[in-house]
Amino acid sequence: MSIFEQRESNIRAYARTYPTVFVTAKNSRQVDDKGKEYIDFFAGAGVLNFGHNNDRMVQAMIDYMQKDGVLHSLDMQTQAKAEFMQKFSDVVLAPRNMPHRMQFMGPTGTNAVEAAMKLARKATGRYEIIAFGQGFHGMTLGALAATANEYFRQASGVPLLHVSHEPFEHPHDPEASLQALQQLADLYRDPSSGVKPPAAFMVETIQAEGGVNVASTEWMQALEKLAKDFGSILIVDDIQVGCGRTGSYFSFDGMGITPDIVTLAKGVGGVGTPMAMNLVHPDLDKHWSPGEHTGTFRGQNLSFIAGREALTYFEDDELMNGVGQKANVVRSVLAPLVEEGSVKKLRGRGLILGLDVGSGEVAAKVVQRCFQQGLMLGACGSGGRVLKIIPPLTIPESDLQEGLTILRDAVRFVMEEAA
Amino acid sequence: MSIFEQRESNIRAYARTYPTVFVTAKNSRQVDDKGKEYIDFFAGAGVLNFGHNNDRMVQAMIDYMQKDGVLHSLDMQTQAKAEFMQKFSDVVLAPRNMPHRMQFMGPTGTNAVEAAMKLARKATGRYEIIAFGQGFHGMTLGALAATANEYFRQASGVPLLHVSHEPFEHPHDPEASLQALQQLADLYRDPSSGVKPPAAFMVETIQAEGGVNVASTEWMQALEKLAKDFGSILIVDDIQVGCGRTGSYFSFDGMGITPDIVTLAKGVGGVGTPMAMNLVHPDLDKHWSPGEHTGTFRGQNLSFIAGREALTYFEDDELMNGVGQKANVVRSVLAPLVEEGSVKKLRGRGLILGLDVGSGEVAAKVVQRCFQQGLMLGACGSGGRVLKIIPPLTIPESDLQEGLTILRDAVRFVMEEAA
Amino acid sequence: MSIFEQRESNIRAYARTYPTVFVTAKNSRQVDDKGKEYIDFFAGAGVLNFGHNNDRMVQAMIDYMQKDGVLHSLDMQTQAKAEFMQKFSDVVLAPRNMPHRMQFMGPTGTNAVEAAMKLARKATGRYEIIAFGQGFHGMTLGALAATANEYFRQASGVPLLHVSHEPFEHPHDPEASLQALQQLADLYRDPSSGVKPPAAFMVETIQAEGGVNVASTEWMQALEKLAKDFGSILIVDDIQVGCGRTGSYFSFDGMGITPDIVTLAKGVGGVGTPMAMNLVHPDLDKHWSPGEHTGTFRGQNLSFIAGREALTYFEDDELMNGVGQKANVVRSVLAPLVEEGSVKKLRGRGLILGLDVGSGEVAAKVVQRCFQQGLMLGACGSGGRVLKIIPPLTIPESDLQEGLTILRDAVRFVMEEAA
Amino acid sequence: MSIFEQRESNIRAYARTYPTVFVTAKNSRQVDDKGKEYIDFFAGAGVLNFGHNNDRMVQAMIDYMQKDGVLHSLDMQTQAKAEFMQKFSDVVLAPRNMPHRMQFMGPTGTNAVEAAMKLARKATGRYEIIAFGQGFHGMTLGALAATANEYFRQASGVPLLHVSHEPFEHPHDPEASLQALQQLADLYRDPSSGVKPPAAFMVETIQAEGGVNVASTEWMQALEKLAKDFGSILIVDDIQVGCGRTGSYFSFDGMGITPDIVTLAKGVGGVGTPMAMNLVHPDLDKHWSPGEHTGTFRGQNLSFIAGREALTYFEDDELMNGVGQKANVVRSVLAPLVEEGSVKKLRGRGLILGLDVGSGEVAAKVVQRCFQQGLMLGACGSGGRVLKIIPPLTIPESDLQEGLTILRDAVRFVMEEAA
Repeated sequence: MSIFEQRESNIRAYARTYPTVFVTAKNSRQVDDKGKEYIDFFAGAGVLNFGHNNDRMVQAMIDYMQKDGVLHSLDMQTQAKAEFMQKFSDVVLAPRNMPHRMQFMGPTGTNAVEAAMKLARKATGRYEIIAFGQGFHGMTLGALAATANEYFRQASGVPLLHVSHEPFEHPHDPEASLQALQQLADLYRDPSSGVKPPAAFMVETIQAEGGVNVASTEWMQALEKLAKDFGSILIVDDIQVGCGRTGSYFSFDGMGITPDIVTLAKGVGGVGTPMAMNLVHPDLDKHWSPGEHTGTFRGQNLSFIAGREALTYFEDDELMNGVGQKANVVRSVLAPLVEEGSVKKLRGRGLILGLDVGSGEVAAKVVQRCFQQGLMLGACGSGGRVLKIIPPLTIPESDLQEGLTILRDAVRFVMEEAA
Repeated sequence: MSIFEQRESNIRAYARTYPTVFVTAKNSRQVDDKGKEYIDFFAGAGVLNFGHNNDRMVQAMIDYMQKDGVLHSLDMQTQAKAEFMQKFSDVVLAPRNMPHRMQFMGPTGTNAVEAAMKLARKATGRYEIIAFGQGFHGMTLGALAATANEYFRQASGVPLLHVSHEPFEHPHDPEASLQALQQLADLYRDPSSGVKPPAAFMVETIQAEGGVNVASTEWMQALEKLAKDFGSILIVDDIQVGCGRTGSYFSFDGMGITPDIVTLAKGVGGVGTPMAMNLVHPDLDKHWSPGEHTGTFRGQNLSFIAGREALTYFEDDELMNGVGQKANVVRSVLAPLVEEGSVKKLRGRGLILGLDVGSGEVAAKVVQRCFQQGLMLGACGSGGRVLKIIPPLTIPESDLQEGLTILRDAVRFVMEEAA
Repeated sequence: MSIFEQRESNIRAYARTYPTVFVTAKNSRQVDDKGKEYIDFFAGAGVLNFGHNNDRMVQAMIDYMQKDGVLHSLDMQTQAKAEFMQKFSDVVLAPRNMPHRMQFMGPTGTNAVEAAMKLARKATGRYEIIAFGQGFHGMTLGALAATANEYFRQASGVPLLHVSHEPFEHPHDPEASLQALQQLADLYRDPSSGVKPPAAFMVETIQAEGGVNVASTEWMQALEKLAKDFGSILIVDDIQVGCGRTGSYFSFDGMGITPDIVTLAKGVGGVGTPMAMNLVHPDLDKHWSPGEHTGTFRGQNLSFIAGREALTYFEDDELMNGVGQKANVVRSVLAPLVEEGSVKKLRGRGLILGLDVGSGEVAAKVVQRCFQQGLMLGACGSGGRVLKIIPPLTIPESDLQEGLTILRDAVRFVMEEAA
Repeated sequence: MSIFEQRESNIRAYARTYPTVFVTAKNSRQVDDKGKEYIDFFAGAGVLNFGHNNDRMVQAMIDYMQKDGVLHSLDMQTQAKAEFMQKFSDVVLAPRNMPHRMQFMGPTGTNAVEAAMKLARKATGRYEIIAFGQGFHGMTLGALAATANEYFRQASGVPLLHVSHEPFEHPHDPEASLQALQQLADLYRDPSSGVKPPAAFMVETIQAEGGVNVASTEWMQALEKLAKDFGSILIVDDIQVGCGRTGSYFSFDGMGITPDIVTLAKGVGGVGTPMAMNLVHPDLDKHWSPGEHTGTFRGQNLSFIAGREALTYFEDDELMNGVGQKANVVRSVLAPLVEEGSVKKLRGRGLILGLDVGSGEVAAKVVQRCFQQGLMLGACGSGGRVLKIIPPLTIPESDLQEGLTILRDAVRFVMEEAA
């Protein structure tokens, strides 16, 4: 028995999907202890936008450690933090005229979401937060109440309160989805509806874990208007699809909306060391008193170092332009699967694409076969029926092509086997 | 205006207590951007048991990165993780005959606490968890319900449910505290008391944030018995006082108790990169289904590397023996303050010691003066009236002496000023 | 100052709308202490279907008291109770092949609703109950969570949990309302919607307090199907519109549905002495253990006596036929108001009719003027903009005509004044 | 099968304890359909302080009905209500200098309790209410949260929130009970205790359903002080032990305390027709807005008529003096049972006395044997081990003696059988 079988909790999951022991990694490839290489279309669940062990980041971290740069600092001021913040301000916020403040609360996405929910409730004096079907926001009790999936929810062991779920934008009927928001407005206006305006609406522009469901600009604008009309906070959870994933820094760039809070994590730390950050509009931020939401690991200087390096990718257009080109490659290689009827739908935006194969069993078989063939891939969506394609944005086109070929063949193989 | 004043959230706190910008750090010293050195009696809120930028750990991390060791891996299997687990099993669990499983859930303490609460509720089918007055367990909604301090609690913006607080062991009346547990047993037995046995009791053996309140062996044993008698889970939150802080790996070593769950974080990652781990008794662990509590940053390989290095300190007695010796130094230098009446009480165990100066204002002034004199120190307890002394366990005796002198003089100075 | 001003709580409400002291009452008329007579279109908020101080009932009560019939009996067996139950079984349940059990819980509507909610939750193991916008179900904490009106809800002082409100059938778009139920079914089927099937749906077929909103047969059937498909309990709250109000004993007669629970109160006791009763399907009733929901005033023998007398009105068609005829009178006298544009809408079924005058201020003025002219009338609906016409079913046609003339003239007067 | 077996809900309880059909009743006797007479030591669960079918009350009710007095009037003003209020003011409130307002909310005890809890929360802006172990306050969701008995609580089907239970005064250690209140004060003062001052303390001076547990004057005074010190409302639930049961109108008369709210029901209506009334201090009553807590059956004129008659019993000392004399009779007849060891304890105050027979099975056998011998009696307390003696206050001494003899013999019989 391996040490994992002997001593690791029964809760382990990816260890079962990818039953090997990994040793090294670089950009879009991981290598296991038998020397087998895997192309990575999973990117650490959307963390590794800039590839595994990004050379520039690793070197900056090593340099920092070699000169004894402070590693752990809670929410004290450090040079590494100042430089990250300045770069983020210069590269991301200033060009968008975003006056937002940066809040570091704890290095996980769920912590960012909890802090956002807390502030929205505190500032409005309201309890209820509206989240959306298929949404995923984390595992701690507050965030879990906003996560829609019943498998996660039931594990809480207590009732999940003060969050209600509305349907996310319907892919085939955008008009009905706009009307649904209008109906909410009607209910909020009626003092006898039994429904009151919420503290916040919390939404992913693209539901990643939920099955790569993409919200339209119109729906996002209507949602922002609904929030503003009723004094509710708009929280965009950009944890999985921000940081360049869609071909621009924020997933909502170009939509003409300005969220009150943006939650960031995963890619923001650059290389996969933990980091999370909320962007909070100053009008809202003033509702925080010092130290009301704390956390030991707020001062992740290695993440500031690597995260600062990541921001340099947004100083020119090269990486972001590449996202569009690579997305086109994905679409062109996989389009035949839709045409030939092997899959129901290929959807997504930028380098987050979902291949709906119709059932969780089929998807699981494809994942397993891909893994055997040297490709790492994850499933998402209701029942796990959507294959999620989120390679590092820095993936070389050759790896992308090779991975897509494995995937396409695996889908066909499983489909034929099932037929 | 600095970038912090321009762009960081109003919630920042330590940045205000220690108003400078830190650049480098080594063992028990930090240096700011003006070259001023500070002796560190705070150790990153109890994280840096092995000192800032521990040489052995930093070198191991650099070596790992230079050979392209996988940095980010969710809960997949990696060599670095295997080696950490094997070492933890060999050095910590096996010698204590602890059959516990290791659960990695997300790298923050609050996440560890949330996972523990979730499992306790899920396994027992009960909702209520008993935590204790002055206890601190984290900031996310589930953990926050267990945190006692009203300043943190009110920020939640919603009612904090399904946790009740009982008084922690009373320092001056241990007999009454044992009776209080007995009274709980009576209430649990009576079907008309309105009170039912809880899912779990969650306790710190030494309440660190709560003011360095130390539970006795007798009380901890009585609590364990109470839990066992009523089918409740015993959770020991050893996040701040585990990992050697008290002179032994666990703070409950030698008490003759075996918690069902031990939550670890802070020091377990060795050097201050985030990591958390729950130790879960196998009988309880089987209530987890795969993936029920997930998290992006479960696979912190740099933390596994540094954390494994930290475990080597427990392969012999040197560091742990030093804890006792250094604690004696602290006590001998500070004892006169109690004798001369400057402070009410010096309490603690191992290298977590608390100096109760009677009021939060006095404590704040002492902290400020120490900082001016080159010593970093934090306040804790009700109203912040207790100065908490938690230097790195690896602090050189000279730094310890120097820091204690600054502290002793600062207390006297503030007391005289107030008189 | 009157004793009311001196000593009654500030919460009194109808005392302000009808500022006089009533002394006697008979059928559809009340007389105050100045000898002024009032025609009653309010019927004690729907209690007095058989008129004030119904002669047959009063005589039966006096006879019962004169022979020392047991007055108070908790849930013990009495002759008066047996005779009521037998009559109810013979006249109401048996002809409809309803196998339902009668539960007496406490003599108020809110108690009936609480017992129904409790049983639905207990039997299904689910918490959530779906109630509807504009619905009114009572004032105690469980029932209040189902009551939609924010004025009542905010008075609770605590969050109202475990009830969600869906929109009631839309009067102008029945098709959309059917689709809305279909969408709920879709959400219940999707394990990632964040929404689960409820313990129960609780609905009034005609929302009385909510503004005389009438559900269609099609919608009620779809709702019953939705409940059955997902193992949810269907509760019809017939407290205000049952007992003959709509021209048949139950308001849902003829709809082809069979609720799992029917809540009855108000009219069931006949003469206005308190009584409530739930009809519970035997398959559901077996989930009650003896004494799980108790109450001191379950054995209201005067109400059994008068209530039994009330049931004799359903042994032939006379009263029920009269309901239709009188409803026609109401409609014909008030129709001109709609035609001439004074009111927006006259709606209802049987002898519960609502006149939407467009605003709460207008309605309040009409109520006040009617009272001056000798007609008692109440307002309901969002903001109180609907005048509710619910005279005793036994009202003589002359009183009905006289009252309607007062009402019609008052509406015109107020409208002209406003113009 | 009787109609009860055919058609009544499985929830029926007293019907099983007293398996006969009652027909008539007068003062302390009930007669069944076989003509068998039963002496009543149960008094309709404490309702019938003035006996079954009290002649004066019945005659007043008949007179009222014969002259067409308004029977049902919601919260409108009626002559019957004015006369009741005036009499209550004159006989009860004025002599005690109580400035309290009378609130009529719905005719059941649970409704009175819900209204009291609602007002306390609304006025203080706090959620939590402290109730006491063994306390009984009703069955609707808010009141049920305050009821301690787990059998009732579990039937709710949802978590019971926002009420915590503290132990009631301990019969054998009054000093410890006073200290327990002091400890609560300490916790309320400490911002890190995890415990905040409640909206209200709700207490019965004698826990009737809870086992005839009697609070001392000292403890009640300490509780009142605790409430006042922390801005909490003091609610005395006098539903079962008020209205003369203890030998004075209120159970707390002579204790030197003034509750903010007194809940009354049961005996206040005189003859067993439903009625409830809260007495609310004017400073608190102003927090009610008109109509915030409504109810159909607030205007119970038959209860006002009978209740007014009941108040005449308090215009002189005859009845109240008799309570003491009769209590002495009970004590002298039953004392030998304690002396000879058949029962553990005879406790109580006025004409509510409890005989602790050590187990619920023994108590149930005694109840059954008494019923066979012609005495009705109920059991209460944890597990139903306490026989509760609450005859009408108007019971003739001959009936009292006869009933006591039956009871004493039954206890001895059951004890001997068990030996």
